[in-house]
Parts: sequence; structure tokens; C-alpha cells
Amino acid sequence: MTNTRLCRTFQTAPAGVPRDDSAKYLVSGLAAEGWQAPDWLVPDLEDGTAPDLKDEALANVRDLLPEYAPDFAGEIWPRVEWGYDDEATRERGRDQIATLAASVGDHLDGVVVPKVGRLDDVKAAEAAVEAAVQESGREIEMAIIVETARARSDLREIAQFGRDSRLSALVFGPVDYAAELGGRDVGGPEGGPNWPGLYEAMSNEASANDLLAIGGPFDKLFRERAGVTFYNGDEYAAHVEREARVGLDGSWSLHPNQTEQANRIHLPTDAELREAVRKIEAFTEAKDEGTGAVSIDGQMVDEATLKNFENTVETVRAVHDARESQTRECYDADLLERALAVG
Amino acid sequence: MTNTRLCRTFQTAPAGVPRDDSAKYLVSGLAAEGWQAPDWLVPDLEDGTAPDLKDEALANVRDLLPEYAPDFAGEIWPRVEWGYDDEATRERGRDQIATLAASVGDHLDGVVVPKVGRLDDVKAAEAAVEAAVQESGREIEMAIIVETARARSDLREIAQFGRDSRLSALVFGPVDYAAELGGRDVGGPEGGPNWPGLYEAMSNEASANDLLAIGGPFDKLFRERAGVTFYNGDEYAAHVEREARVGLDGSWSLHPNQTEQANRIHLPTDAELREAVRKIEAFTEAKDEGTGAVSIDGQMVDEATLKNFENTVETVRAVHDARESQTRECYDADLLERALAVG
Amino acid sequence: MTNTRLCRTFQTAPAGVPRDDSAKYLVSGLAAEGWQAPDWLVPDLEDGTAPDLKDEALANVRDLLPEYAPDFAGEIWPRVEWGYDDEATRERGRDQIATLAASVGDHLDGVVVPKVGRLDDVKAAEAAVEAAVQESGREIEMAIIVETARARSDLREIAQFGRDSRLSALVFGPVDYAAELGGRDVGGPEGGPNWPGLYEAMSNEASANDLLAIGGPFDKLFRERAGVTFYNGDEYAAHVEREARVGLDGSWSLHPNQTEQANRIHLPTDAELREAVRKIEAFTEAKDEGTGAVSIDGQMVDEATLKNFENTVETVRAVHDARESQTRECYDADLLERALAVG
Repeated sequence: MTNTRLCRTFQTAPAGVPRDDSAKYLVSGLAAEGWQAPDWLVPDLEDGTAPDLKDEALANVRDLLPEYAPDFAGEIWPRVEWGYDDEATRERGRDQIATLAASVGDHLDGVVVPKVGRLDDVKAAEAAVEAAVQESGREIEMAIIVETARARSDLREIAQFGRDSRLSALVFGPVDYAAELGGRDVGGPEGGPNWPGLYEAMSNEASANDLLAIGGPFDKLFRERAGVTFYNGDEYAAHVEREARVGLDGSWSLHPNQTEQANRIHLPTDAELREAVRKIEAFTEAKDEGTGAVSIDGQMVDEATLKNFENTVETVRAVHDARESQTRECYDADLLERALAVG
Repeated sequence: MTNTRLCRTFQTAPAGVPRDDSAKYLVSGLAAEGWQAPDWLVPDLEDGTAPDLKDEALANVRDLLPEYAPDFAGEIWPRVEWGYDDEATRERGRDQIATLAASVGDHLDGVVVPKVGRLDDVKAAEAAVEAAVQESGREIEMAIIVETARARSDLREIAQFGRDSRLSALVFGPVDYAAELGGRDVGGPEGGPNWPGLYEAMSNEASANDLLAIGGPFDKLFRERAGVTFYNGDEYAAHVEREARVGLDGSWSLHPNQTEQANRIHLPTDAELREAVRKIEAFTEAKDEGTGAVSIDGQMVDEATLKNFENTVETVRAVHDARESQTRECYDADLLERALAVG
Repeated sequence: MTNTRLCRTFQTAPAGVPRDDSAKYLVSGLAAEGWQAPDWLVPDLEDGTAPDLKDEALANVRDLLPEYAPDFAGEIWPRVEWGYDDEATRERGRDQIATLAASVGDHLDGVVVPKVGRLDDVKAAEAAVEAAVQESGREIEMAIIVETARARSDLREIAQFGRDSRLSALVFGPVDYAAELGGRDVGGPEGGPNWPGLYEAMSNEASANDLLAIGGPFDKLFRERAGVTFYNGDEYAAHVEREARVGLDGSWSLHPNQTEQANRIHLPTDAELREAVRKIEAFTEAKDEGTGAVSIDGQMVDEATLKNFENTVETVRAVHDARESQTRECYDADLLERALAVG
């Protein structure tokens, strides 16, 4: 987390749905406000949009971005089609990337490429982005969804490729991934597989190569109990907390409620910030007295510990710079002032 | 789990034991019926058979396979001797492989090679299989047991080698593995190490290269409590469920009870199949109306989710084709019919 | 754990602190007795010592080792400065390594190099050690602290480099590591990230290349509850048990209490040793009767299981050879005698 580029939330919105207003969800995402506004909005031309609506979905993105993007506070990253095992799908992906860059390249930050395979396939996707950049003259980055066994197998080399290419972010795709590996929910409290090794590797390789790392969607949006169906807020929060714990920069959202929760959870808690500020202050004082390591509230603190507390403060500052109302709501004025002062 | 080749159970049986009938366990395995019949039977010439009995064990396999194999519904994979750190053991392994191929090659599906080291050692084992195939004219595959630090270190390259070689399956060997790494059961409810990272990697690399992945033996067959010793069925079931959760194709069995439990657990539960069929039906209907993603029973379902449900149905169909009595016992007739219809 | 070189405890002691006696903690470490004496003492010239005191800290090590090292039963491994991302720090590290080797090389076993990056950086550190060895004529080994995303990414290649170089041990540095990845303690019982994948990989790669593997520091030395602050002995014990479970050879200590606990936990428990001895005896008897695998107390035991029990006995013997009072205290005389007899 040397990365203070905000991506607490990666919200996909189908760019075309079979309704009178086929752009209904796309507009909702672009017009969201407050905690429900994602840091990254991902207009979805891939699995969220039915085959018959792909063209209309692309048209929706082209029509609406010029109107909404200028007032959208976050970044915009359409998801295009791709597939390591299907050239026809890749060809559609190349067309979508070229069309988006040419038509609304000024309103995009990048494109999200799903279902990539081994390193060679990621390079092919990046070449399509590079070609679109050359053609359109607009700077566009690339995020990939890690959701195949091949991409997981080559993750280290793929991430290193990201050091000097348009690849800027790794996103996890657990649903396709579970299908490839044959993961199952065999019942019981544990539920399905949750791939802790993949999470650790994604966080590590992103950090080793200055990429962003973003978690996977949580699709059990609602729960039913005793006849009543309700938003599954506890399980989603636990999912996002788990992603934050291992150092992912953000989480995937499928719903405005999820966006609100993930935006909040990827902000340090009041307790985290309070501890960070207090210990930075105390350690700074101890250093002035010539100490290298000192016990503060029972914790042995040294330069390494300090970096963790500084991360906390830097995240708060980054959010404060971009969405001041959010930090003002979360922390009392005195704590926030001390946090901004120690940075 | 694109793999519908059945290997829910990998049951080892010592091919020679110090009894009047030294083939007692081998015959039991070959003659097992119903849920106690393993998908793969592994006559063991390695650790399960004492040094003095190796020759008799090999003779048992040669004598009994022509009689029993034709009626055995599953596959037969003898485990031979091997050792990355001992040439004499490898030489015995080569002889065993050659002898098995020449004498009962028509009744075998492959050989299981234990204690392989780095990629080069796996290639040496595969060369022995290839030589035996050339010599005997019988097609035989190879499974390896991943149970050394070296094999784990090279797992990715070893699995890739499996793409275009006789290597078809990766099996985990936790007992040797724990000894190599120095893992300990320090007491408490967690017990010994359980290597989640290795499990994830094995499932991933097998899937990336179209290999089968099979779990490790659970050796605490019986438990004692308050003076009474009984079959440790709860712990074994939890062990198999954990392997199924991360997408392994099958589990190792040391006992007919374990075979029965693993055969059942590697079949989708009634609840899994019911959910899969219902959601495939509902999603198909939604697609017909032009929807790409739709919320069904609170879950956001799209093409990726669909693949998971299709996996469930495909596994049921594969078992149905091979062991119809098992699927008929597990699912009611209506559900099974719907499952076979949506496939 | 083919490794019986003792390193149950890796205790860092700041080599210079802002007190009248700036060597206070260094002397405490060197003079510690009984269970509080670490197997490895690590005089810290890096984060534990403030910038202004680095020179005095180095002088303390040079002054005190000739006096204390001859009577210190364990090994002595100063931690020098290093940083993959800062040449000036590396230059200080090279000077410290050269100075230590030239002045007190006879009293050192090796140096600990922190914050290494990718393989090339580890090679650069090793070259500094090699140069100091050539210059001074004293044999010195190297341990590295794995605490950057880059080192984790290259861990396999780094460990392989250790096969034929002065690199002898891998140590985990979770505080810097969490800062690099952006790991967080988001509250709740789970606390911060605990990197099970890294632990598994470190244990595996160390075993594959005959290196030692040592866990990371636990910095929450004390806990407060209802106004009273006390030593956090339960959490540290759980931390060390977790490291022992996956096969690490030792644990990091920041305090004499931690050293005592880790020295004890990295000895087999009485129950472990008792089981190991009983089953070795029973299996040996069964082998004499021609059995390859036999069920003992409900567990299926074969040659692979035996290796685990032999590991237990070998660890006890190694500690017995070095610190006989510790094994005599932990096990009754009869059990210890049987253990030494079966080895």
C-alpha cells in the first residue's frame, strides 16, 4: 500500500439491460452520490450484458460518458470481452477497446480485460490497448481479471510485466475461477472455497510491481430467513474486511449498498486512525530522545511499525483530498487535524 | 473441474501382507462393491508393503489382475517404489514399472510414482513409464505423489510438463511432506499442519494443465474415547469436504469406510444439485428474455455462475453414466431427471 | 526438519540504547541463562538502534563479544543495515559486515541482512559477506529477513541460491512486510493479516534447500485489561505454536519471556515425545514381523509416519546434546532414556 491512488470500490454496472431504459444501471452508477459513489465505475460489456444487447451497451457507454463523466468524481473503467480460449471473443474485445478509445477515450481511465490466460495472452490484451492508444491518441490503462488457472499460474510474471506496460491493476474473479478449479460449496458454515493463497499472492505481486490489487465480487446479495429476504450486509462486510486485511486496495461491488460498505471499510476505522496518530506522535518523541525502538501501549514500535501507521494516515489523507465529506464524517475534527499534521 | 474422468476415490491396498493370504487386502479392494468400490484402486508396492514382501506383492498383482480387473468398474493404478534421493530405489521402480507393463499392462490404467523431487526427477520417472510403454506396447499413464519440498517447489513446472507427457494426475502425500518440512502437531484443536497453500496450488496447476488432482491420506482411522475405539468418520468427512471445497477431483482412502464416505462426498449433495438445476433453469429463462445477469434467490447469476452449476450437473452425469445406482440412491427421480435434461 | 542445528529462538537485542549503559540490552542477551538464553542472539544495529547510536552500537558489539561470546552457549548473529531501495543504506551495511568480520569475526556465526529485495539484491548482500570473509579470513554465514514483496516474489530462487552460498537461513519480517503490502488490522478477533501462504512457502523452500526457517517477531508484548497491563503470554505462545506447526525451526523473540516460551514450544511436548517413542517401538516390532503398514492406536503407521516420529526424537536429542538440563526438566527420566535409545 505505497499506492494512494483511490480504488476502494470497483463497481460493475451492466451497460445494457432489457428494459425500456437499457442504460438504467449505467446511469445509476454514474450519477451515484456520497458513500454510494464508487471510486471506480466499471460499465460492463461482458458477462453483465446479454449477447443481444452488446451493441446497445457499447452505444450507451459512448452516449452517456460525455454527459456524466465530467462530473463523476472517480475513475471510469469499462469491462470489455476477452477469453484466453476463444479468438472470436478476443476479436470483439479488440474492437470494443478501439471503439471506446476512439469515441470516449477522454472520459476513460482504462479498460478491464477479463478471462486472460497465461502471460502471452495478457501481452496480447495489452497490445490491443496499446494499439488503441496509438490510434486514438488517448492515454488508457489496463486492468485484468485474474480468474483462470493459467493467469493464477503466471501471476508473478504477469505482475512483473505490469511494471513497464499499460497493465495497472489486478482484479480477482472468484466465480469463473471456482468454475475452472471445480471449487464447491459443500455446505456447513465455511461455505465455498475462499482462496487465501491467491489473495496473498495478488497482494504481494501487486505491491512488488506498484500495481493496484482489487478483490472479487460477492454475489450473495440478499439472504432469506424465516420468510423475509434482506440485504446480506454482514457477510459482505466480512468479505471486504478480509480483503482489506491482506492489503488489497479495494473491493468489487455489485450494488450501491456494497459500494457504501466497501468505501467505508477501506477507510481506516476511527480506532485504527487514533492508534496510528497516537503512536506516530509518541514514537517521534522517543526518536527525538535517541531511541530506535520503544514500547508504546505494550507494543514494541520501531521504524517498521511506523511505516504501517504512516500508511493509515496516508490513506486518510488521500481520501480527505478526494472526498473530504467522508473523512469529516468518519473522524472527529481533532483527530483528523492531528492525522493531517503528522503526515 | 473440466475433468469428468472419475477419480473420487484413490484407495491404496498393500499388495503383500504377512498373512497366510498375503493378497488379502488387494483382493478386498478388487472385489469391493457398491459405495465401497473405489474409482481408483492402488495396489501398493511401496510403503504399505514391507521390504521382504516386495517380490510377493508384485507377484500378487501379476496373478490377480487378470482375474479381477475385467470385472473391476474403476481404474487400477499400482504404486511402485521411487525416491528422488536414492538411485537404488529408482532402479527398483523402473523394474517394477517395466514388469507391470509387460505382464499386466492390459489391466492397468497407470502407475503411481511416489517421492519425486524436482522437475528433472519427474521427467526421469516419466521416461521409465515411456520406456515400459514402448517395450510392452501397452498404454500406461503416470500419477505422481507430491510429498517432497522439491516437488512442491517445482509444482508449476511439473504440472506444465504434464500437459504433453504421460503424467496425468497429481496426488498429495502429507505424511512424507510433513516429515520433510518438520511440521508438528503441537496439540490443541488445530492439530497438525494442513497446507492450504499446497492444496490451492495443486488444484490450480492441475486445472491449468488438464490433470487430475487427488488429496492426501488421512491416517487417524480410529479414535478412542472413554475406553471405546471407533471409526473416525467425522474427521475424515471434514478432511474430504475440505479437499472437495478447493476443487480436488478425489480423495485418498485407506479403508472401505473412507472409500464410501469419499465416494459420496465427491458427489454433489442433494442441496447442491437442487440449487444448480433450479438456477440453470431460471437463468436460461432470463437469458431468453435478454438478460445477462439476474438475481435468483438473492444471488447475482451470470455466465460465470452458470459454469459452476453446470459443473455440478456434469459431475452427476459422469457418475450416473458409470454408477447409476449411486445417483439413483442420492437424488429423487424428479431432480435427477431435471439434472440430466439441463446438461 | 532434516536440520538439527538449533535455532529455536532468534532474539534481537538493540546494540545501543539511549541510557547511561547503552549496551544494557545487549549484555542482558549475552548473559541470559537457562530457558531465557536464546539459541541465537541477534545484536541489532538496524531498526532497534536509533540513527545517532549506530556507531556506539557497533562499538558495543566489538567491545562485548570478546568478553561474553566464549561463554555464550548459542550462536551470535548481528543484524546489520540494508535496504533494496537505498544504496546509501547498503553501503553502511557493507561497512558493518566488513568491520564485524575483521574485529569480532571469531565470535560471530553470521550476519542478518534485512530488507533484501529480489534475487539480485540478495546476491549483492551475499557478495558483501563473501568479501568480508575473504578480507578477514573468518567464516561467516548470512541470514536474510524476508520482509519485502520483492523477496517474497523471488523466494524460491533466493532459497535455491542458498544451496551453494553463504545464505543459511530465512527469517520472516512481518512488520515491514505488512507495510509494503498494506495489510491492516481491521478489528475483530482475527486481528491483522497472518500470511499463511508465506509461512508455508518459507518452510518448503528452506527444506528444499537445507536452510533454516525462522518466524517473525510478535510485537504486542503486553496487554491491558481493566486497568492492568500484563505480559501477553497466551498470544505469543499461539504465534509460536503456529510457526512450529508448519515446520519452522525457530521463532523470533523480543523479550526474555518470549525466549523462554519459544525455547519450550520448539521442544516436542511430553505428549508428542511419548507418542513418537511408543509408535517407533511398536512399528519396529511390526516391521520385524514383516509388516509394511500397521494400525497403532488407531493411526495407520508406515515408513513415512515413522520419519515424523524420528524427527521428534532427533530434535529432543539435539537439544539434549546442547542443553541437557532442558530435556531433563521436560521429560521424565524413563521417557528420555527410551527416546535416546530409539534414535
